Amino acid sequence: MTDPATTPAVVGIDVGGTKSLGLVIDRDAGILVERRTPTPSGADGVVEMLRETVEALVVAAGPEVAVRGVGVGVAGLVDGRGRLRRAPNLLDADGLEIGERLAPLVALPVVVDNDANCAARAELEVGIARGVRDAVLITLGTGIGGALICQGEVVRGAAGMAGEPGHMIVDPDGPVCVCGGRGCWERYASGAGLAHLAREAAAEGGLDRLVGELRGDLAALRGEDVTRAAREGDAGALAVLDRFARWVAVGLANCAAMSDPELIIVGGGLVRDWDLYGDGVRDHLGQLLVGARHRPPIRIEPAAVGEAAGALGAALLARREVGLHPSVPSGS
Amino acid sequence: MTDPATTPAVVGIDVGGTKSLGLVIDRDAGILVERRTPTPSGADGVVEMLRETVEALVVAAGPEVAVRGVGVGVAGLVDGRGRLRRAPNLLDADGLEIGERLAPLVALPVVVDNDANCAARAELEVGIARGVRDAVLITLGTGIGGALICQGEVVRGAAGMAGEPGHMIVDPDGPVCVCGGRGCWERYASGAGLAHLAREAAAEGGLDRLVGELRGDLAALRGEDVTRAAREGDAGALAVLDRFARWVAVGLANCAAMSDPELIIVGGGLVRDWDLYGDGVRDHLGQLLVGARHRPPIRIEPAAVGEAAGALGAALLARREVGLHPSVPSGS
Repeated sequence: MTDPATTPAVVGIDVGGTKSLGLVIDRDAGILVERRTPTPSGADGVVEMLRETVEALVVAAGPEVAVRGVGVGVAGLVDGRGRLRRAPNLLDADGLEIGERLAPLVALPVVVDNDANCAARAELEVGIARGVRDAVLITLGTGIGGALICQGEVVRGAAGMAGEPGHMIVDPDGPVCVCGGRGCWERYASGAGLAHLAREAAAEGGLDRLVGELRGDLAALRGEDVTRAAREGDAGALAVLDRFARWVAVGLANCAAMSDPELIIVGGGLVRDWDLYGDGVRDHLGQLLVGARHRPPIRIEPAAVGEAAGALGAALLARREVGLHPSVPSGS
Repeated sequence: MTDPATTPAVVGIDVGGTKSLGLVIDRDAGILVERRTPTPSGADGVVEMLRETVEALVVAAGPEVAVRGVGVGVAGLVDGRGRLRRAPNLLDADGLEIGERLAPLVALPVVVDNDANCAARAELEVGIARGVRDAVLITLGTGIGGALICQGEVVRGAAGMAGEPGHMIVDPDGPVCVCGGRGCWERYASGAGLAHLAREAAAEGGLDRLVGELRGDLAALRGEDVTRAAREGDAGALAVLDRFARWVAVGLANCAAMSDPELIIVGGGLVRDWDLYGDGVRDHLGQLLVGARHRPPIRIEPAAVGEAAGALGAALLARREVGLHPSVPSGS
């Protein structure tokens, strides 16, 4: 029988644009309890949600669990001090000092990082990147998130803002991005990008069956329509997915030109259709990667941890921050 | 008086496309002797030149200097085992196993890296990046070389090929690059890119004075003509340099999106005209960098070490490889 209050643990919370996931893990990254909640708007709302989530998780975990710290992953630019510098997906939360505001409310140390950096940490410590020294993670969703792993560590960068490959410029005269720039990779290789490519193809007559189903309403055409039609064998939809795969590969080639990873991990909502375009990404990357014929191919794999990766990685960051070590060292 | 043969030292050699520079440094990175030599063509010629250079440097250094190892920096893709996988600027040297072939000939350990990685090491250990944790180095020459410094270390990557920002794709439908790809950054922001921008501007009538001097021969227009005319105040030439600065900034923004450096170091032949376009690069980067308004500006500085950076960095790599430590630890 376990002695009361002797299971040391940490909380991890992933603050998404619409919903948030909190969980408690023990020292070996085992998930003890989870809690889902809608993400409110505004800085105060987010802080209050975080406080409530920590308290509810502590209660749910029970008296035998001693929570030592909190990790928060959040979509947006997070600086090295845990301040949310820019969060296009959270309403009115720019500049929010998450760590400084939450820590006194929950009387625990709080550490904050970008959600994709947290997901990369989860893959590195308990997922597909275990034992990998150099990797890149991208999350293909509405936009593109990312993280850079060099020499076994998630790179934070000078201002905490490393790993934003979605805003690499792949066409300086391209369409305007949510970041204010032009021709960012995420304009092409995200969910929004897939819809854009589909509308282009439809306008050129390449998706007549789909357009017929939508009664000619091109604006209603979404990425999901393309993947569904592709699964049904629609040649036009498969061609759109091949163009999409090429755009994914363009950005991955750029990531690889910088950091030469042994592994590229693809996560985010669009990874559920990886079977439809993953081989295409590999083929195009083989064409686009600098010196492709003179180097070993780079392994590309879908993320292994799943939708809890952000929260789990945030918890793992907190585990490290508070000096809680696994009972069995990783790698052994 | 110094005891004979008690100055431990290492050799560094930078193998350039047309000429090579070898030098011997002591444990404190002081240069004892130097030797310049043309770079021969062919794998055998390069190996023989390297052997001769090491022997000549050892003789020139004198009997009181004990050379412990050799570092070689070479333009091209160098894998983690010191093999030159692809060297577009060296004739018939692809696949050359530099380390394996040179080591037995000189009876010394040999370590090999890309020339820009070597230059980055020189800047990191004795140049402008001393004490810096996260940096990017680019060399603007005929092409663009580069190196990535994360957490105080030059990143080699999985196959030894990290730090090739010149081949990031900034326009997938752009002009063909020497690497076989399309729209690589070095098509726009290198010496060759500057000449291309100048010819474009000339064709549009923007460089009439220069074109007149060249008697209408647009093909003869070179980057040097533009910088010279800009120094004379030619408005058309200054406009070309502003476009050039924007292209430099596009690639730097992409580097920064990945790794968020605190310092970007600009080296290579084109840095001699940095005073003409450096401020432009800073201004454009301030527009193009993701989240520019929400993060501290990134410092951009010309390289400090000068033309010996490749050879010196190769020597510093060898110094590390053979375990030769400075008499005064760096940073103290």
